[in-house]
Amino acid sequence: MKVYGAIESGGTKFVCIVGTDPNNLLKEERFPTTTPQETIDRVIGFFQPYADRGALAAVGIASFGPLDLNIASPTYGYITTTPKAGWSQINLHGDIQRRLQVPVAFDTDVNAAAFGEQYWIPEHKLLDPFLYITVGTGIGVGVIVNKFPLHGLMHAEGGHFALPHDWQRDPFQGVCPYHGDCLEGLASGLSMTKRWGQSPEHLPDSHPGWELESDYIALALVNMIYAYSPQRIILGGGVSQHPGLVQAVRCKVKQFMNGYIQSSMLMERIDEYILPPALGNRSGALGAIAMARVLAARLL
Amino acid sequence: MKVYGAIESGGTKFVCIVGTDPNNLLKEERFPTTTPQETIDRVIGFFQPYADRGALAAVGIASFGPLDLNIASPTYGYITTTPKAGWSQINLHGDIQRRLQVPVAFDTDVNAAAFGEQYWIPEHKLLDPFLYITVGTGIGVGVIVNKFPLHGLMHAEGGHFALPHDWQRDPFQGVCPYHGDCLEGLASGLSMTKRWGQSPEHLPDSHPGWELESDYIALALVNMIYAYSPQRIILGGGVSQHPGLVQAVRCKVKQFMNGYIQSSMLMERIDEYILPPALGNRSGALGAIAMARVLAARLL
Repeated sequence: MKVYGAIESGGTKFVCIVGTDPNNLLKEERFPTTTPQETIDRVIGFFQPYADRGALAAVGIASFGPLDLNIASPTYGYITTTPKAGWSQINLHGDIQRRLQVPVAFDTDVNAAAFGEQYWIPEHKLLDPFLYITVGTGIGVGVIVNKFPLHGLMHAEGGHFALPHDWQRDPFQGVCPYHGDCLEGLASGLSMTKRWGQSPEHLPDSHPGWELESDYIALALVNMIYAYSPQRIILGGGVSQHPGLVQAVRCKVKQFMNGYIQSSMLMERIDEYILPPALGNRSGALGAIAMARVLAARLL
Repeated sequence: MKVYGAIESGGTKFVCIVGTDPNNLLKEERFPTTTPQETIDRVIGFFQPYADRGALAAVGIASFGPLDLNIASPTYGYITTTPKAGWSQINLHGDIQRRLQVPVAFDTDVNAAAFGEQYWIPEHKLLDPFLYITVGTGIGVGVIVNKFPLHGLMHAEGGHFALPHDWQRDPFQGVCPYHGDCLEGLASGLSMTKRWGQSPEHLPDSHPGWELESDYIALALVNMIYAYSPQRIILGGGVSQHPGLVQAVRCKVKQFMNGYIQSSMLMERIDEYILPPALGNRSGALGAIAMARVLAARLL
């Protein structure tokens, strides 16, 4: 039997999985992200037995970025200019494909998560555009449009949207090293930790920081609705799991749009429109399995 | 010989064209947008002779919106909830297709303009995503992603992005009836007229309004670059034609992005990245001809 591999490559940990689908995962391992050489060696070690006996049909990589996704570029498959020490200009895709000798699919962690939510969840199948937003330590956006992930000059970077910032109400200057008070600068988990002196997991439900947080996320979603006209939005990441946050965001999205888009989905069924991930915190890894399956099928 | 028809349907005027390509336009007529019945009668009258003798292969419509572009919807091809008196819930596509008895392609004026710039200009052919932004009385965004126009729940509405608004520097409250100080509320031609008491055509080059205008357009473009990662941006519309505006916008886009996306296109060649329309003010109409050609070819 053929199996598929998934690599979820994050700034703090890597997750490797072998399996065929969400209900048939044969092996899984997580390890810290150290140097590229050591980390990629562990990845290869994980998959080698399957590759050696010809069982590994393909691997999908869901990676932190920024990435070069342009297949015509000499640095296709590289992690490019990350601030993560030692990881700039690393040929993640090429190294793994060369050493395992199997086809390897490659995309951002958030595009993979969008792909996974759409591929594995029957209710999401034909919804296009399809959006996956993660609000955790950072903020990322994955987009499927016209059946494929959005790439282009680079890939979506909706985490860095410029947004209205009411300095009187929120004098915090933001944490983005490039833009200060962009979306990620104002609403990431990191920004909450810096602004309130405690991480979002420890911020009490009654803390006014949650009101501010749902305001910023809702504003960002309004901009994304105007940009992509998505048919579904998945709101994932650790911060989004705070009780009541998704519900507050839905309310405020309606309020901020103020009836501009007369769609029953927005006006009456927003509870079905903005949803937590059906795959929990495994959308990215399971998306990588899906990417591997699609790549293998295309090469048959 | 087969010919193709184009209808550019605007809130103040309609343009009808018959031809085969930008260098072979056989007949063109413009008339004011009055009632739907009178206006559509004139459209039919314009094309009827070509349809009668079987010469009209297909027609493309580039329309003001909002539009229903979902082919599975019972109101596909309608202008939906426009504030333009008498034009809400008008079956523009259906009426014209039924009366002319030819295949009719249908999209927003801005998607058609993006399509036209990409279809007719060889240098733009493989650039994807491809963006067309018009800044005139209103602000609209057309997007080609993964080879097709972006539709979805509705269509792109990037004119209504929420943006940072520095109330101290610009105490103007904005003109958008839905959002007040969204992009269109702060930077459309209409907003300039209301803010400064004179229309943008009459605002002197030295007026501080132009500084503010290029700031807002640049902020909007930064958000669009983060949203779509486009490979080219066409900046059209009457306001964008103000001398120096495109140049100022390019500078400020670089400044606001602050090196976040390390692409040589943005860092070194932004003069080739943000461009005025190669087809002048005819991108929409010539895009409708292109849409008609593609539809006819698909039906062969």
